[in-house]
Amino acid sequence: MTANSQSGLLDPDRIAVIGATDRDGSVGRALLENLSTFEGEVIPVNPNRQQVLGMDCYRTIGAVPEPPAIDLAIVAVPATVAVDVVRQIGAQGVEHVVVITAGFSETDQAGRKREQELTAVADEYGLTLVGPNSVGVMSTSTGLNATFLEVYPPEGSLSLVSQSGAFIAAVMGWAVQHDIGFNHVVSLGNEAVVDETDFIAQWDDDPQTDVIVCYVEDIDDGQQFIEVAQAVTKNTPVVAIKSGRTEAGAEAAASHTGSIAGSEDAYQAGFEQAGVLRALNIQDVFTFGQVLAGQPPLDDTRIAIVTNGGGPGVLAADSVDDSQLALADFEADVSSELDDLLPDAADVTNPLDIIGDADLDRFESALDSVLAAETVDGVVVLSVPTALYEFEELAEIIGSLHQEYGKPVVACLMGGEPADRAADVLTAYGVPNYFDPERAVSSLEALADYGEIRDREYETPMSFDVDREAAREILEETVERDIDFLGTEAIGILDAYGIPTPAGEIVDGPGDAETAAERINGPVVMKLVSPDIIHKSDIGGVEIGVPAAGVADTYRMLRERARQYDPEATVLGVRVEALVDPDESTETIIGSKRDSQFGQLLMFGFGGIFVQIFQDTAFRVAPVTEREARRMTEEIQAAPMLRGARGRRPADLDSLVETLQRISLLISDFPAITELDVNPLVVSPAGVSAVDVRLTVDRKQLSDTR
Amino acid sequence: MTANSQSGLLDPDRIAVIGATDRDGSVGRALLENLSTFEGEVIPVNPNRQQVLGMDCYRTIGAVPEPPAIDLAIVAVPATVAVDVVRQIGAQGVEHVVVITAGFSETDQAGRKREQELTAVADEYGLTLVGPNSVGVMSTSTGLNATFLEVYPPEGSLSLVSQSGAFIAAVMGWAVQHDIGFNHVVSLGNEAVVDETDFIAQWDDDPQTDVIVCYVEDIDDGQQFIEVAQAVTKNTPVVAIKSGRTEAGAEAAASHTGSIAGSEDAYQAGFEQAGVLRALNIQDVFTFGQVLAGQPPLDDTRIAIVTNGGGPGVLAADSVDDSQLALADFEADVSSELDDLLPDAADVTNPLDIIGDADLDRFESALDSVLAAETVDGVVVLSVPTALYEFEELAEIIGSLHQEYGKPVVACLMGGEPADRAADVLTAYGVPNYFDPERAVSSLEALADYGEIRDREYETPMSFDVDREAAREILEETVERDIDFLGTEAIGILDAYGIPTPAGEIVDGPGDAETAAERINGPVVMKLVSPDIIHKSDIGGVEIGVPAAGVADTYRMLRERARQYDPEATVLGVRVEALVDPDESTETIIGSKRDSQFGQLLMFGFGGIFVQIFQDTAFRVAPVTEREARRMTEEIQAAPMLRGARGRRPADLDSLVETLQRISLLISDFPAITELDVNPLVVSPAGVSAVDVRLTVDRKQLSDTR
Repeated sequence: MTANSQSGLLDPDRIAVIGATDRDGSVGRALLENLSTFEGEVIPVNPNRQQVLGMDCYRTIGAVPEPPAIDLAIVAVPATVAVDVVRQIGAQGVEHVVVITAGFSETDQAGRKREQELTAVADEYGLTLVGPNSVGVMSTSTGLNATFLEVYPPEGSLSLVSQSGAFIAAVMGWAVQHDIGFNHVVSLGNEAVVDETDFIAQWDDDPQTDVIVCYVEDIDDGQQFIEVAQAVTKNTPVVAIKSGRTEAGAEAAASHTGSIAGSEDAYQAGFEQAGVLRALNIQDVFTFGQVLAGQPPLDDTRIAIVTNGGGPGVLAADSVDDSQLALADFEADVSSELDDLLPDAADVTNPLDIIGDADLDRFESALDSVLAAETVDGVVVLSVPTALYEFEELAEIIGSLHQEYGKPVVACLMGGEPADRAADVLTAYGVPNYFDPERAVSSLEALADYGEIRDREYETPMSFDVDREAAREILEETVERDIDFLGTEAIGILDAYGIPTPAGEIVDGPGDAETAAERINGPVVMKLVSPDIIHKSDIGGVEIGVPAAGVADTYRMLRERARQYDPEATVLGVRVEALVDPDESTETIIGSKRDSQFGQLLMFGFGGIFVQIFQDTAFRVAPVTEREARRMTEEIQAAPMLRGARGRRPADLDSLVETLQRISLLISDFPAITELDVNPLVVSPAGVSAVDVRLTVDRKQLSDTR
Repeated sequence: MTANSQSGLLDPDRIAVIGATDRDGSVGRALLENLSTFEGEVIPVNPNRQQVLGMDCYRTIGAVPEPPAIDLAIVAVPATVAVDVVRQIGAQGVEHVVVITAGFSETDQAGRKREQELTAVADEYGLTLVGPNSVGVMSTSTGLNATFLEVYPPEGSLSLVSQSGAFIAAVMGWAVQHDIGFNHVVSLGNEAVVDETDFIAQWDDDPQTDVIVCYVEDIDDGQQFIEVAQAVTKNTPVVAIKSGRTEAGAEAAASHTGSIAGSEDAYQAGFEQAGVLRALNIQDVFTFGQVLAGQPPLDDTRIAIVTNGGGPGVLAADSVDDSQLALADFEADVSSELDDLLPDAADVTNPLDIIGDADLDRFESALDSVLAAETVDGVVVLSVPTALYEFEELAEIIGSLHQEYGKPVVACLMGGEPADRAADVLTAYGVPNYFDPERAVSSLEALADYGEIRDREYETPMSFDVDREAAREILEETVERDIDFLGTEAIGILDAYGIPTPAGEIVDGPGDAETAAERINGPVVMKLVSPDIIHKSDIGGVEIGVPAAGVADTYRMLRERARQYDPEATVLGVRVEALVDPDESTETIIGSKRDSQFGQLLMFGFGGIFVQIFQDTAFRVAPVTEREARRMTEEIQAAPMLRGARGRRPADLDSLVETLQRISLLISDFPAITELDVNPLVVSPAGVSAVDVRLTVDRKQLSDTR
């Protein structure tokens, strides 16, 4: 799809409706009726009608007199003829098509074949095609409503792209009621040709779109999505809700759309890296969308709460503490200013309780001081109704002070009808109003999140001097040995990528073991090396802290355990390694898994129970930048341990961050690695040491990319 | 307060308003005007008026002609005369008083003194006194509005008691707008006499109250609250929101009310044990309140979702997975029934997507089958607007099927005005309607939580045969030695309470250490015993796995480390203990701290990083029952480790649960123990072993309770 190709799609002058009809209850009729608000020309096409709803009707699109050219064709014909109709549209030189017709890949084998034909026709003619199985498109600035829905939203600056038509149907009526305005609304349907990434790219340059809102079920090409969204979200916030987040949800989605979405870990990482704000429920989608459309991002996280109600003020403070925001401190000059203007009974603290007998003047002067304060990045005005002022007048004060200072302000005018009337006043200033203080705080958090995204500098992943050929040779052992899996014997792949491994060697006799241990000079770790024994610890295949005198016996014991576990197992030997001091070191895991949508996914976490039971892990789509790798080490819950909690010396975080980037490079260089586990990667103040490795390989892909 | 004393308070026949006036903008006038809807008699009292708003006004309450007697006096006079006025009220024999007047303990020292006098007068006359600093009380069934607020809620079955008057002011207008009905509303103010516990107790027997809703800032007597609420919540759900949950919130609350609330851990545990449903934001308070008022509790957690919109259905499934609910499985007969009635394109799965062309008949038959299914405990009906049916008709179907089956049903009719009209239909059936599927699911979760509470059987904490005198003797060492803290030397207190400790003894010479180690016969643990060295590990005061040959040297080394750390430290010796096999054992912690509101608080968690960084802990107010102790071991995140995760044998959970109960008994027997840490308590398949103990004692209290 070319860069400007949707301008004709969502800003056409002349539209043909193929399948136009006046039959009651038909999609074709609903479309025509909805299009009556459109500023441009609408032309019905139907081989069986001469007139439809008073308009001249043409047998085919080819029969429509030109010029002017038709910019957009809406297709609402039976599935059996839809592909032919689209071919005629393409042949006629029309560039934009919305296929409402259902009965494609969402149904059965015949439908999937039909969709392949449709895509082929679109490719042949270079069509920008939305659908099939779309409920249509809307664009409020020209009154365009090319859908068969019963509701049409007010004009506004949110643009919505949704894989689910039902989602659009569900939210539009609610949007009308809550005066949430939209610019464009696109129902993607089966995404045979265009998808959300195309519209996100397009709407970045749209002056009438302030915020892009997405309902996502799956993302076909995760890497492209990240690339496009990183560029767009520097200027235009993108808010997404992804259905099928959970196991139950993903199963339901698979049953509903037939698609297998990638893993939640991948989406979580992908959205974060793309700079996309994620909403977990429908209410948040529009809370975030609205506040981002009306308010500037937060420069920092320091929030002030101004209230005439102590109790609700405390609830707001609780919400700030739950969030990633913080309560601002007032500096001495601000405090003394506030102290002067407030009655004696009021404390100058944050939340700033200007107490129940506050009138408009007190609200205004308190707000003025707080907004002027350098330590305040954003404000929640929380107001309980009293007989001393009207909400609408307070709303005017809030709005104009917001305008004067340009800092983000959100309101909680708590009440019924009067609060709603005041909310209309606030809306004119772009200030959202909420009943619940928690939502006000969470809307400010979205502004802070977007502030961080806007200020991001996306770097290029670092390059390292690595030995790709050595790594490839090790991976190709799988082809030679006709296996998918490599274990400790593949540790050389880490050496090839410059990742430190413990001093040590693989031996195949008790005498050699003793010699290896002598070279290490100190207690050693001894472990079986066998591609057939995956969980070595479980069969006693690892012995830690073996003194010199016990090395030969331990060698024999390990071989015996392997034999007892599986007499057929190939045992390549026993690895003898230096023991890392456990008091100074932490066992971590760096892993990867290949995701069907996002590609290589890099994982970091602490070993053992931390990953398995606490699921205390960080994921990123590879390749990662230095910043992203560092964030991974910071965002796991156990991170304080690395920074030197509990009286320990801090670990060598720089080495850890570099290792994450080197592994990221490895899995990016070799997409054929479907899973990899460096476990444990021992991290200590002296550096890192990759003690063991396991990986699985897609041998076919490996050979293909030779 | 006696059991029925509020009936006069909230159901009076004759009310006197002291401080009645017709002065514009005064509280006295607002009260009188609001009382105009009251069914009974209202009598103004004011020494300076003969008539107020057309009513005869009396100089004092004593001047009001009787009979009939006055049931309730509302006081809105200046703070300086308020105590005298209340004394006159008491002398007149009026039993119920609401003091609106502010200027008591919420202000300054003089105010605190004034409040003490008020309490004394109330005690003298046995008054049921609400306030001072209350916004008043409401009771809709008699039109009673003894507040100065501008809004009055519709009649309903929620009764609200709130410490914050601003909270009441904030939510009432919103309640009017959203048609949320109340029976009683009480603003507690400073709680000089009555508090939330009194009203919770009272409303249990009130046939017009289906759900009790509380806004809580602090709870004076946590143990009494738990006792009362446990009894009430068997019949009447109690929903509470507690402000000052977080550190920032608690600071704000302290500044706002001057009260120091107990710890969040204590409230969390206290509410759980009391059977009180906790809401974390204002919206949830009323979401939970409404659904509990309209719907029966869930018997189990199996939910079905019936929808005509695939995408929103998946979002609902995500929310179920996030919650403690589960998606119901349909048994074969139900599946085949559904299969018969749905079109071919629909899959019989849960969420049950009856697809976009569903009409009312299909909704009705699908809902009928699902509600009849034995494996379904509750249903979410999720409906996207289409041209094929009207929401209001669907609402009738949902309502009557709910009535027929009596199972909990909540609705998500997603849309604007038409959904609101349908919601009115649903309300008549007690079925709540939500726009966001997440809220619908969370309301069902509240019904499940209440189902669990309703079915609880509160046991008595178990009694154990312990040696209280031996324990007391050890604790009294603090008095003798003039210290607050005891360490390893107090381990006998665990022996006295029947808690296993490792075989071992305290020795004070290298030779004795060797003898002790010989008796143990195997590697030992050696640790310094000193009341002056609290964190022994940090100074190398604990050596683990010392072989027989190293015992004497280790003894000398430990003494030397103690000397280097602090030459003045009292060292009582070195404890030599058997080493527990680390592969089979888990280090846990049982601790306690004394909370200012709830008393002794028992804590359980895993040792080290788990408590300190993950804060993976479980708390209960002591004494705990066997059920509560078991839940503590189940609810920490690391619990799977105890049950035998990662190929280990399961730990001896029964011994752990018994140990929790024994420690609970210990701290209940000795409230003078202000903090206690059994750390580590090693748990293995063979049982538990309390390896070390630390405790602090309130010596004065210990002596007083001798």
